[in-house]
Formats: sequence, C-alpha cells, structure tokens
Amino acid sequence: MSEKLAVAVLGAAGRMGSEAVAAVEAAEDMELVAALGRTDPLETLVSAGARYVVDLTVPDSTEANVRFAVEHGMHAVVGTTGWDAERLGRLADLLETSPGTGVLIAPNFALGSVLASAFAAKAARYFESVELIELHHPDKVDAPSGTAVRTAQLIAAARAEAGVAASPDATATALDGARGAEVDGVHVHSVRLRGLVAHQEVLLGGPGEQLTIRHDSFDRASFMPGVLLGLRQVAGHPGLTVGLDGYLNLND
Amino acid sequence: MSEKLAVAVLGAAGRMGSEAVAAVEAAEDMELVAALGRTDPLETLVSAGARYVVDLTVPDSTEANVRFAVEHGMHAVVGTTGWDAERLGRLADLLETSPGTGVLIAPNFALGSVLASAFAAKAARYFESVELIELHHPDKVDAPSGTAVRTAQLIAAARAEAGVAASPDATATALDGARGAEVDGVHVHSVRLRGLVAHQEVLLGGPGEQLTIRHDSFDRASFMPGVLLGLRQVAGHPGLTVGLDGYLNLND
Amino acid sequence: MSEKLAVAVLGAAGRMGSEAVAAVEAAEDMELVAALGRTDPLETLVSAGARYVVDLTVPDSTEANVRFAVEHGMHAVVGTTGWDAERLGRLADLLETSPGTGVLIAPNFALGSVLASAFAAKAARYFESVELIELHHPDKVDAPSGTAVRTAQLIAAARAEAGVAASPDATATALDGARGAEVDGVHVHSVRLRGLVAHQEVLLGGPGEQLTIRHDSFDRASFMPGVLLGLRQVAGHPGLTVGLDGYLNLND
Amino acid sequence: MSEKLAVAVLGAAGRMGSEAVAAVEAAEDMELVAALGRTDPLETLVSAGARYVVDLTVPDSTEANVRFAVEHGMHAVVGTTGWDAERLGRLADLLETSPGTGVLIAPNFALGSVLASAFAAKAARYFESVELIELHHPDKVDAPSGTAVRTAQLIAAARAEAGVAASPDATATALDGARGAEVDGVHVHSVRLRGLVAHQEVLLGGPGEQLTIRHDSFDRASFMPGVLLGLRQVAGHPGLTVGLDGYLNLND
Repeated sequence: MSEKLAVAVLGAAGRMGSEAVAAVEAAEDMELVAALGRTDPLETLVSAGARYVVDLTVPDSTEANVRFAVEHGMHAVVGTTGWDAERLGRLADLLETSPGTGVLIAPNFALGSVLASAFAAKAARYFESVELIELHHPDKVDAPSGTAVRTAQLIAAARAEAGVAASPDATATALDGARGAEVDGVHVHSVRLRGLVAHQEVLLGGPGEQLTIRHDSFDRASFMPGVLLGLRQVAGHPGLTVGLDGYLNLND
Repeated sequence: MSEKLAVAVLGAAGRMGSEAVAAVEAAEDMELVAALGRTDPLETLVSAGARYVVDLTVPDSTEANVRFAVEHGMHAVVGTTGWDAERLGRLADLLETSPGTGVLIAPNFALGSVLASAFAAKAARYFESVELIELHHPDKVDAPSGTAVRTAQLIAAARAEAGVAASPDATATALDGARGAEVDGVHVHSVRLRGLVAHQEVLLGGPGEQLTIRHDSFDRASFMPGVLLGLRQVAGHPGLTVGLDGYLNLND
Repeated sequence: MSEKLAVAVLGAAGRMGSEAVAAVEAAEDMELVAALGRTDPLETLVSAGARYVVDLTVPDSTEANVRFAVEHGMHAVVGTTGWDAERLGRLADLLETSPGTGVLIAPNFALGSVLASAFAAKAARYFESVELIELHHPDKVDAPSGTAVRTAQLIAAARAEAGVAASPDATATALDGARGAEVDGVHVHSVRLRGLVAHQEVLLGGPGEQLTIRHDSFDRASFMPGVLLGLRQVAGHPGLTVGLDGYLNLND
Repeated sequence: MSEKLAVAVLGAAGRMGSEAVAAVEAAEDMELVAALGRTDPLETLVSAGARYVVDLTVPDSTEANVRFAVEHGMHAVVGTTGWDAERLGRLADLLETSPGTGVLIAPNFALGSVLASAFAAKAARYFESVELIELHHPDKVDAPSGTAVRTAQLIAAARAEAGVAASPDATATALDGARGAEVDGVHVHSVRLRGLVAHQEVLLGGPGEQLTIRHDSFDRASFMPGVLLGLRQVAGHPGLTVGLDGYLNLND
C-alpha cells in the first residue's frame, strides 16, 4: 500500500488556507501533519514531518516560506501572489542545489480556468475573429480582470506566432467604450452584475461557425482540486514550474 | 369557410420583399394578389383587388404607398424605415378619415427580438443590476446596434419609473472601454465576430441569481412570422399602431 | 415618516428562516419583532406586536400558523410547501371573515425564476418550437425538477389556449432518452453536474431565430428579495394570492 | 514567389462541392484547374494538371476517385463518408507504393467542431462530471447526432484511460428520458428546435466551477476553412491521415 503524502498548510487561518486544510483532510491519499498560522514557527514543519508544503500566505512571507521548505527538501505548492522575476530567479538558483525537490507556483488553481485559457490560445490560431467577455460581481475594483488580461495576452501571442491577421472590424461610428478595451489587439468586455462570482467567455468566430469556451467560478472550492493535483504531482516535477498547466497533460 | 386575405407586396424585388412574397404564397390563409416593384403603378393594387398591403420599399416612397393604401381602404403592414414624428402625425390624421382601416408600422418584425425587449424592460424593475451585450458580424459599421440602444432606453425608462437605483459598480481602475458604452446609464457591450448574424443578450442580476434573456437572429426568415402575424391582426386594430408589440398579448 | 413593518419569522432556525431573519433585519423599512422556532408558542406573535408573518416552517404546521395569523389580522407571506387544494380552500374561506388581511402563498420566491416562467409561457404562443433544459447539482434525487415540470405545464397550457401545434420533430431513430422527458408534450432535459446549484433554460425557436430565457440560482440568498417584496405588498393585496407573479406588474 | 496549388474538385455540382469550388476560387494561393461532376471522366484530372484533389462525392465512387488520385501522385482531401476499416486498409497499402503522396480523410471539416471535441476529451480527465447537449433543426431524423456520439465516446475513453470515476448522479425518481441517453456512460441530451442548424455543448463540472465548450455551425460555409487548411497541409503529411485534428497543432 502506498504511503500517504505528509502535507503542511501555511496560512491555514486564511480563507483559502482553511479551505486547503479541509481539502487535504478529506483526501484519502494525504495526511495533514501541520496547519500553521502567521505566528507559528517554520521549524514546526520539520518536527511535524512535513514532506509537502502548501503556501497560501501573503506576498511578504511567501518567499521565506518556500526557501525554508526547499532547504529542508520539502516540495512546495504555492498560491500566494507576489512572485516577480527577481524572486523566481532566486528560487530557481536555490532549486539547483536541491535537484530532487519540486516547486509549483500557480497564479490560478481553478482547473477549468487554466484549461479554458490554454484551449483559447490553441484555438485562436484557427479563427478569423476572437473576443473575450469577463463577468464578475459589482464589488470588483478593476476591469478587465487579471485573468482576462492574461488570457488575451496568450491569445494575441498565439495569433502573432501563427501569423493570423487582426480580427476584422468595420466599426466606423461607435459610442465611447462600446467595442470594449483592447489588450494586445484583442477586444475585452467587462460585465459587472450582482449575483455573479467570476466568469469568463472566449468567443471565436469563422465563416459560418462559432467556438465558445466559458469558465464559471462559483466559489473558492473551485481551487482545491487544483491544489490537490499539484500536491500529487509536484514530486514528479523537480525544479521550478510556473502555472498549473505545466502539470496538465494537454499535449496527449 | 373563411376567405383568404388578399395581400399585395410592395418592394417585391428587394431582399425583404422577396422573402415576404414567398411567405405570403406559403401561408394557407392568404392569397398573393400583387407583387409590385419600384416602377409598377400603385393603381395595380386596386385592379388586383388587394385588401392588405405589405410595404417593404424605401424611405422615399413608403409614405406615398401607405397613404394610397389607406385612401383605398386597404390595411397596411409596414417594415420600411424613415417614419419620423411628422410623417406619423400626417398618417394618423389621414386614418381618422378612414376609421375602419388599420396600419402597423414596425421597426422590427422578429417576434423573438420584440418579445426579448419587452421582457427585459419588465424584468429590469426587479433586479439590482442590468447590462446588455449585443453581438454581430464584423461588417457592421455602427456600435452599439440600433436595437441595443432602443432596448437599453426601454430598460432605463422602466427602472426610472419604478425608482430603481443605478446598477452598482465599484470599478476604480479600468482599461479604456472595458466597461462598455453607457446608454441612459445602462452598460452596453458590442462584440463583432465572423460567423455571427445579429444576437442580443440582456443580463439581469440580484443577490444569488441571474436572469438572462437572449435573442438570436440567424437569418432574414426570422422577420416573416411577424409580418404574417401583422397581416392577420391589422384589420382588428384600426388606426395607427407603432411596434409589433402592440399586437402581442403580453399582458394576458 | 412612514412606520416600519413589524415582521415575525416562523421557522427562524431553519436554513431559509435564518436567511429571512437576516434579510428582514437588514431591510430599512422593516423591524423584526419576533423569530420563532418550532417550540415557541404562537401567542408570542401577539405579544410581540407582529403585523406581518413570514412562514418558512414545515408542511405539518404551516396551516395552523397561517390560520392563527389571519385570525389575529396579521398578513402572511408563506414559503412552506404542502398547500393542496383542500387547505387553500379552507384558507380562502377564513379570509372572507377577515377582508382586510392578505396572504401570499408562493412555491418559489426567486424573482428571476418567477419572471422566467411567466415570460416563457407568454412567448411560447409565438414560436414553432419550445424545449426546456434544467441543470442541477448531482445530489438532486428527482428529475425533472418541480420548477421545470410547472414551467412546462404553463407553456403547454398557453400553447393549447392559443391553438399552437406541437413542436415539430422528425426524429425517426433515437437512443433511449435522447429526446428527454415529455411533460404535456414539452420536451424537458435534466442535466446533473457537480458545481451547479439550480438553473433552467427555456429555448424557443422559429424560422431563422431563437429566444432563450435562462435563470440561474446560485444561492438561497436569491429568495430574499422576493420575500421582502411579498412583505411590502401583501397588505395591498387582501385575500389569498398564490404565486409571487400575482404581485409583479407583468402586465404594465 | 510560391506557385499556386493546382486543385480539382470532384462532386463539384453537389451542395458541398459547389461551396468548395467557390472557396478554392477565392483562395489567393490556389488555382481551380478542374471541377468534375458525376459523369466527367477522371482522366480530366491528368489533362488539367491537378496536383490536389478534393473529393466531395458519394460513398460509391469515393474509393475509386482517391485511388486514381494516388496512382497519379495527386494529394487528396476527402470529405465523403463511407470509408470503413477495409477501405482504409486498402488505401494505406496503396499509399506505401507512393510514399510522397498524402491523403486526408475527415468526417468533419468544421475547425471549431474538431477543436471542441479534442478539448472536451482533454478536459474530461480533470472534472468530476461531464454531460453533453446537442441542438439541431427539427427535420433531423436521428438523435443523438453522429458528432455527439463520437464526442461522447472520445470523452468516455479519455476518462477511462485516466481512471476517472463515472459522473455522480443521485437521481432516484425520474420521468422516462429526463436524464438523456447514455453513450459509454456519458449522458447526452438532444434538443430539436426550428431556427437552429447544428450546435453542441459539452458541460464539465467540478466543485465550485464549470467549464463549457460550445460549437455552433450556422452554415455549410463553416466547412471550407477546414478544406482549405487540409489542401495547404496535405503534401506535408505524406501517407494516410484520418481526422482533421491530425493537422492541427493541438500539442504545441
């Protein structure tokens, strides 16, 4: 019988962290060996026997947490933001000294969202037109969403590489804003509606046909299957991986 | 057995007119007695025994056509644009001299589109948030579409009358255009995509729920059921009616 | 300044009841004067000065609760199920003895759902084809949902009254179940999917066009605006009203 | 400057064939050198100098057409049905004698449809639930559509290979047909609606999230970009390829 993964959650008192604690406890192939809050010492990871660390803390502490894990040979799955190029470079250097250790840093753990973005970029090479609609609750302060901007950038890059022309648009007279924002030439529309959570739709059109790829996030629970998948695969991916799509077999 | 309606089509060589000719010929309760092109004399209507006239011509000739019909006691169903307040006033005056005659002037004969606008305005009184997305082929030169602008105006008027506050929106930083155009305070987003024809979606949101009313026009054939419905009901609605919704029993 | 509505909630410890308690407390024009659980005596309603009662209890106790309210001149808004024709008849008789008192019995308080059903029935008279898709979480034990069955019945009744033929269907060879269930001749399809809550889509089709009316319930919070609307209007609708649509001005 | 592709269309008088003739004529990198009907001799392909053949004929003649092309070193793009295992085997044998020649046999040339099926199969490994809805015009005689059956089979195979459990379903009481047809354990729902052409939606659900992949075919024009893509790539794929997805870089 295979042993259970010994998992510790950092940031266990936060909204995402407490969901992760529950998800790890519910997973039959995992054992929760530690759940640390802001003031708990990292040494607890060692004494608890953690082999896997989930970091869902804050930008100020995530780098120190992950370095501690790697230095102790623990694999890490990281959902905290704030990993810029400089931090990533330092972490990659550190990982060279611990060649069997894996770290996954993912801005988004919702499997559906990661898949939707990857599919949209693949498909965008084959369609004359592509636009993007994202829909969120009305308390959101930025528009478009970060996910929508990243998806549009992926789409634009895939089209540029494939030599696809810009989406056709004969608009000659328009009300200000009607045609949305442009992100690298891709039109992006942001809807804000009470009752919604986080939703995104990529529309691709060619002569006589349309392909639509839509993702709906109804609740934070949507991140947990991605966190568990990360924990199950991180040991098999030594070194640094950025983005959960690196673990999805999209090319099979 | 009830007699067939004796129908004449004006503008019979045009795109809409030729569809109307085919639709009238296929209707079991109608007889096509005349199909007139641009140069055919209106007197043909009399000699052919027309009792009902469908006008699908051009703004320059529609007023004279309809006046001729009314003066000869023929009911008229009119899809031609160009009927401003002045023309409508003159027509209403004329109809007072012919009290049994009915005229329907409709900017839109797609039943689904007319119903969608009416439902959206009714529902908009009960929801915290409402936004509108219209989607068309990329050869369209204006944005938003005329139908979208009219629908947004209807929605805004219904909310104002019911005392509903503006849709909430916490957006603080936005890319230019991301939140769409505002029509009387209603956000309207215009998508342009190869493969599409004419589509519109009204999104209404409240705590924990969403209502979506969507209309898709795939083809000009969508106007014909509305034209036939108009012909069947115009004699029962003497005087001037503007808008097909005046014939739909939305209040039953 | 207008006085606040004095509201009591029966079944306050239940899932719906506790939401109602919170909603009444948050409403600026209402005051929560009592919140009763299963074992609390109904006399508390009198001593607390309740003028409005929300009943969200169980089928076994709802009739006695509502009778008590009416006998004490309190208006009642009722979301509990179990009101068959016999109970409704007895209640109507009782209300004749208290002509100024209003009771609303509603199987569904989600405004969007009530509107969607009403619109679907109105529209179904004008389209050649209509089908219904309902989508729920996979722990639901019945299919189709009760709301879907009621909506299909409303649609079928509206079409029958308007003399509309059955939706066309040339299917000659089909896998068992592919074409869904038939409810009064309307095809109904039930999807069960992890992540969903309660969703329903009515699809109406005619030559070259489609009208889609979709309702999404993401969360029980969606019932509260309907409960509050009921409380605000019940005094203005003396006697018995069944269905929240009786309070919505769908015919304006 | 690169030379134009010398293309011949077989079955040029048919519905698909005449679209292909128009598409090839409109393509700047192609020259239509022959357009053959049922009674035209295949030798015309040689005298016309065809290097590429599009076969859009009938099951009875497609094999002889393709063999003639291969024997004369012409590449072939084939949309005709009727290629069973035996025919494919004979063709593969023939192609071994002509190693530089390519043949593409594709049951579906709509890029969006091919992509949608491929994406659905990839994604189905990562979601707890998956169901399929296909929607067509009401004159269709079979349900579910062939494309829906194939997509469901691809999904089922991908889940089986990945060891994913069956989609959860607590349904205990159901109207006959409500839960759709089962194809290899995947629930498939068939909607028939006037106004529609051919549409398919794969719904994937996990805790708190949904991924939807939808394809709409509005018109036969949707097949032509796939036919042109096939012509441009067939020479670069010597031997036999079945399915347009073999030419799409889905694994980049």
